[in-house]
Amino acid sequence: MKGRGDRLAASLAERELDLMLVTELVNIRYLTGFTGTNGACICGPETRLFLTDFRYTERAAAEVEGWETITVSDDWLGGIATRLSGRVGFEDDHVSVRLLERLRGKLADGVEAVAAGGAVEKLRRVKDEDELSAIAAASELADEVWTWSVERGLGGRPEREVARAAEAHIRELGGDPSFPAIVAAGPNGALPHAEPGERPIGSGELVVFDMGAKLDGYCSDGTRTFAVGEPGELALEVYETVLAAQAAALDAIAAGIGGEALDAVAREVIAQAGHGERFGHGLGHGVGLEVHEAPRVSPRSEDVLSAGEVVTVEPGVYLPGELGVRIEDLVVVTDGGCRNLSALPKELRLVE
Amino acid sequence: MKGRGDRLAASLAERELDLMLVTELVNIRYLTGFTGTNGACICGPETRLFLTDFRYTERAAAEVEGWETITVSDDWLGGIATRLSGRVGFEDDHVSVRLLERLRGKLADGVEAVAAGGAVEKLRRVKDEDELSAIAAASELADEVWTWSVERGLGGRPEREVARAAEAHIRELGGDPSFPAIVAAGPNGALPHAEPGERPIGSGELVVFDMGAKLDGYCSDGTRTFAVGEPGELALEVYETVLAAQAAALDAIAAGIGGEALDAVAREVIAQAGHGERFGHGLGHGVGLEVHEAPRVSPRSEDVLSAGEVVTVEPGVYLPGELGVRIEDLVVVTDGGCRNLSALPKELRLVE
Repeated sequence: MKGRGDRLAASLAERELDLMLVTELVNIRYLTGFTGTNGACICGPETRLFLTDFRYTERAAAEVEGWETITVSDDWLGGIATRLSGRVGFEDDHVSVRLLERLRGKLADGVEAVAAGGAVEKLRRVKDEDELSAIAAASELADEVWTWSVERGLGGRPEREVARAAEAHIRELGGDPSFPAIVAAGPNGALPHAEPGERPIGSGELVVFDMGAKLDGYCSDGTRTFAVGEPGELALEVYETVLAAQAAALDAIAAGIGGEALDAVAREVIAQAGHGERFGHGLGHGVGLEVHEAPRVSPRSEDVLSAGEVVTVEPGVYLPGELGVRIEDLVVVTDGGCRNLSALPKELRLVE
Repeated sequence: MKGRGDRLAASLAERELDLMLVTELVNIRYLTGFTGTNGACICGPETRLFLTDFRYTERAAAEVEGWETITVSDDWLGGIATRLSGRVGFEDDHVSVRLLERLRGKLADGVEAVAAGGAVEKLRRVKDEDELSAIAAASELADEVWTWSVERGLGGRPEREVARAAEAHIRELGGDPSFPAIVAAGPNGALPHAEPGERPIGSGELVVFDMGAKLDGYCSDGTRTFAVGEPGELALEVYETVLAAQAAALDAIAAGIGGEALDAVAREVIAQAGHGERFGHGLGHGVGLEVHEAPRVSPRSEDVLSAGEVVTVEPGVYLPGELGVRIEDLVVVTDGGCRNLSALPKELRLVE
């Protein structure tokens, strides 16, 4: 965690803030290492305060480094308010309307609460070596679970059973699912966020299998599309299109490219193949402590990628009533390109 | 879900609202049955609109009854805003400062957004028969997992291993943990929210085992304290005190009692035994779609209990550095008393 408070403090001047109040738990974990469910950080050039309640005093002592921990015993918002002064940024994208109103009611004269959401999320975009190791380990664990899953065969098993078994195996290997696994076969594959159902996976169907693991707080995210038995012409054509779109994007990715431009590279390949209307989501998103975080890689992204950011590259084509294909890798952006954290092969794998 | 929209609509008059905008996902699920991750309800005397995006059109068609479903294709907040008119309540305890500001920027002239948080949570307090069945089933599942866990023995196993195994068994039985299980032995038992650790549970120690299952969206919550081998004098004395405090509270509970008064009944027994300073949390809380919901049963509660509410009754005594005891049942409040959903015996059980 070392240095993260310093980086946040250094970012306050450009927003003309004296202090930043951080109340979002993932951001608190990022800054301090604290994993409990109630806390607040107050950060400024000379200030590194971490506040929690009596339930977490001991945990904070074990986890929090570089921040002075204060246990607030009774009036939580009052305990925060008395430690604020000047222009104080708060996370307007997380703080509820009611909480802000109550907090403002407790601020001393002259203390001003200023909307400053996204300050920590911005710091979280570029990962340090420890974070990259954690994400790589989570990705490796997920790869192992895909391999394990398809070795057991997919045909005849209900989607839900495949998904639940994969999640259980993630846990057996010491992780947690970073989101509920998606297993969507045949026409269900055309629903990008299908809920795995009770229908057994049929022969000749494509299976979109989207899964991630969480290890030491860090997430992975990836997708492979498998074929059960012999796929049809259409399935093969769509698969090759998506694969080519992903290859083009992986080829184009590097520090300095815009999220919109990178998305366009893959989208163009799919459009050329005649499926331009059938890729109804963005190409990718950042992954870290959360499975969806900044930056965005989509037609509406205004982000520019930097070295050390971890993003998904996940083009898809979804033909309603017929089938879907999505291929998703997790990559670390580098100066000249990227480092791919997804080790599973990507030629269409025919499984039982 | 039938009738829930009607009850919400009927409650708007007293707040002088024309419409209520519901954006909190658990509240949306309560009102409509929708289980996806993006939606909004607009409810009024003549209005039952459910909005979602293209990812969930099919799921909404399968799940949502009694509400007209609209798929918003592009501008989500704009799609909501154009359907609002007059005085519109919003959930100020959930809506972020930023979201409200963006929504207000899209409202037509004369449309007013008014803080109205808690409206749905209030409806959720009293459960209907289907909800009570779901909670009872979740509670039964958890009881089965406690029995299974102690039959395998607790002594010598790390707390964390006991907790993870119990969670895995909840999943094997078709549920999900409603929160990460707490297994806290010996001195760790004195930390009401201890994170299960790697220390093996020792002989002669008390083990606080707090766990809940979630089934069909509904939660259970309960705690038993077990003894591994022969407990000492102090452990026995504290256990009997907590058990007596719980018995007194279970005896006092009935529709019409205040949350503060009920808490005081248990607190008084513990104070009489000389441990008044060692019961550092409230006696209980409501349980339903969330494991913590209204009403509160605590020294600061202003709630009055009604028939059909489901609450925990969970006194505890925590002696720092020594041991902790908590005994928690889940009960349905009735007119004359309560119906206890926790079937496990409560005399101190000595396990291996």
